[in-house]
Amino acid sequence: MNERWKRMWEGLGMDLEAHDALLEVLRKGYRDIYLAQKNRPEGMGYFDFVMSEVHGLRIKELLDEKEAGRKVIGAFCLFVPEEIVRAADATLVGLCAGADFATEEVEKLLPRNTCSLIKPAFGFKLGKVCPYIESADMVVGENTCDGKKKSYEILNDLVPNMYVMDIPQMKSAEGRALLKAEYLRFKEAVEKLTGTTIDAPRLKKGIEVVNKKRKAIHRLSGLRKADPAPISGLDALLANQVYFYDDPVRFTDSINKICDELEARIDKGEGAMPKGTPRILISGYPMAVPNWKLPWIIETAGAVVVGEESCVGERGTRNLVDESGSTLDELIEAIVDRYFKIDCAIFTPNRDRLDHILEMFEAYQADGVIHYCLQFCQPYLIESMVIEKALETKNIPVLRIETDYTSEDVGQLRTRLEAFFELIK
Amino acid sequence: MNERWKRMWEGLGMDLEAHDALLEVLRKGYRDIYLAQKNRPEGMGYFDFVMSEVHGLRIKELLDEKEAGRKVIGAFCLFVPEEIVRAADATLVGLCAGADFATEEVEKLLPRNTCSLIKPAFGFKLGKVCPYIESADMVVGENTCDGKKKSYEILNDLVPNMYVMDIPQMKSAEGRALLKAEYLRFKEAVEKLTGTTIDAPRLKKGIEVVNKKRKAIHRLSGLRKADPAPISGLDALLANQVYFYDDPVRFTDSINKICDELEARIDKGEGAMPKGTPRILISGYPMAVPNWKLPWIIETAGAVVVGEESCVGERGTRNLVDESGSTLDELIEAIVDRYFKIDCAIFTPNRDRLDHILEMFEAYQADGVIHYCLQFCQPYLIESMVIEKALETKNIPVLRIETDYTSEDVGQLRTRLEAFFELIK
Repeated sequence: MNERWKRMWEGLGMDLEAHDALLEVLRKGYRDIYLAQKNRPEGMGYFDFVMSEVHGLRIKELLDEKEAGRKVIGAFCLFVPEEIVRAADATLVGLCAGADFATEEVEKLLPRNTCSLIKPAFGFKLGKVCPYIESADMVVGENTCDGKKKSYEILNDLVPNMYVMDIPQMKSAEGRALLKAEYLRFKEAVEKLTGTTIDAPRLKKGIEVVNKKRKAIHRLSGLRKADPAPISGLDALLANQVYFYDDPVRFTDSINKICDELEARIDKGEGAMPKGTPRILISGYPMAVPNWKLPWIIETAGAVVVGEESCVGERGTRNLVDESGSTLDELIEAIVDRYFKIDCAIFTPNRDRLDHILEMFEAYQADGVIHYCLQFCQPYLIESMVIEKALETKNIPVLRIETDYTSEDVGQLRTRLEAFFELIK
Repeated sequence: MNERWKRMWEGLGMDLEAHDALLEVLRKGYRDIYLAQKNRPEGMGYFDFVMSEVHGLRIKELLDEKEAGRKVIGAFCLFVPEEIVRAADATLVGLCAGADFATEEVEKLLPRNTCSLIKPAFGFKLGKVCPYIESADMVVGENTCDGKKKSYEILNDLVPNMYVMDIPQMKSAEGRALLKAEYLRFKEAVEKLTGTTIDAPRLKKGIEVVNKKRKAIHRLSGLRKADPAPISGLDALLANQVYFYDDPVRFTDSINKICDELEARIDKGEGAMPKGTPRILISGYPMAVPNWKLPWIIETAGAVVVGEESCVGERGTRNLVDESGSTLDELIEAIVDRYFKIDCAIFTPNRDRLDHILEMFEAYQADGVIHYCLQFCQPYLIESMVIEKALETKNIPVLRIETDYTSEDVGQLRTRLEAFFELIK
């Protein structure tokens, strides 16, 4: 495969040797974690293919789109509305990275104690190993946490077309006004980049495409409520990860095909794991590709993940945009309404998130909640202590995990998780 | 002294034993660091007295004010406008703490990797050793950094009358509108707390009192431009620290008296340190009482601090509120104008701060800049790397220090600082 895309990667200015090494690690991780699973839905074959071509064929598609005059926009966060990007016939891709890279170089630009979603974003850029950021005509940052907000000032020197979106910290009238003003400003920036004026019909179509993608994921999530769970948490997480990279229409079809298969499984009482396997709700920090560490340990330690309360999961995909509006302003208002509901830990207070965890715990028939966080993420780390206390008050078993991208603590985590599963059985 | 105030502290529900231990450490630190200095201005006797009574007589004054029907408001940040508090005949006091306390208890509520301005705020409350927070009728938090923003959700359970103020992250039109809306909301909260309606004459008087305090500090700062420096950085820092606790009118008079004395010193060519001593500008994170570690090492290692680009320093005190308005809205606008200029690292971008550092470096005839930060403060840590690079580009010697409240790294810091002073001599 590498030979096939070599010229393309060269054309993007990538470091071929470092990139080969990265792909090798990715391939090995995927084989050991994903392909080693038993009893996978056949439809996951599509995602196996997508992952094998995530830096190859998918990049070729993006470059073909660019060749045809379309634009590619890269983003790090849920708050960047894909609807507006689609409305201008552009493509939005996720830029977060779930593995450390070029850490020594990164730490010349960022403090060591910066979280592991931010440092790899720099590492992949500095190391020239991310074909997505190299293909992007515009990179959109957002003022969510302090770490991202401040590091974009530095990333600005590394990427040619950096755009920063402000995000409110409270769900007040002023907060909503800020979000709306920022979405209008973003719309203008996208129009300028693409040369396409976004009118109501275009925006409505953008909303419909993204809603369909979300509805497919809602359907998949709904099926995970069954016992036995018809799909592993690892496979469901992968679907949620590919959500950020794939062509939305093709992605929607692939998810719906898997859902057809899972419905048949459920009818036959079949599952990815045996009935009675302890059911885990993961809550917390987003897991970007190839950060599969925690669900992998959970699912090889005797439990199954039935839901993700995460940006790469239900926090990111729940709530549709109301499609009923007909004017541009009505549609923008509907987009603002939808995104303003995101219960990210950057908001204060953030009671909605706790309610969502409780709701998911019930809906997915979970036996326990594992709160997951990467080191040095202040919003989720502090909120995890509030969440833990609240769940304990309701006698919901909860385990707080703070980790990183290394494999150093795998043994220790496995021991803690096994003890937790014993407890909740 | 302790016997004299014992009943008062008991009445505030404080832990007398723990508090005695804390005061003993404070007293010892003050003696070894402050009273050990040579050649101090006589006027510093006032601050020696203030510090010896900072938990005693000053608290008695606050309780007397409360007895007379006035209110005490505690705050953690520069963004809480003292003008509005004074306009309602209430008193604003600073609640930040510059020493670790009850860390084990704090880490049950907050992640270990939370910065040392936040953890002690909890520690002093949990340990019942802060008479200011115990006297406060209202405690005002603000959404500056993630750490503070999220930890106030937890502090809310510990203090009875917690109020949180939202703060913008960008200096946009929406950001300014948010700050104005929040200041109007705060005015209403203060009116409700005090039962006093804040009209234009009251607000104007509040502005005048606080401006006078700032002008006195500006006068003091101006005198530090002389070589030899007429006052040590330690003594000037103390004045900036007491700024947050003392009665503003008395404070203003005391600073002006010291300034008279310093002017006479300058006329005679006298200084706190010899002419030619390396002159240091400290830039970065605020130093709350009794965090005197860095200037103490600097000034016992052969240099003198001539300016503080810090919240407890010029970032906090520069810029007056325009007093010329006559309507309430004009005066509120003037307050918003002044506070919106604060160049805190929570803002992005924050170019003003770099300009201010460059301006101070020239004005105070500094030989080098020491950027100071406490561990785990993401905004200032990340910004410090931008500042370092920018100063290096201009051939300004700069040293980045990341430390904590312990004395564990004193030896190592002394070695680094001595090497830096050798370099810039």
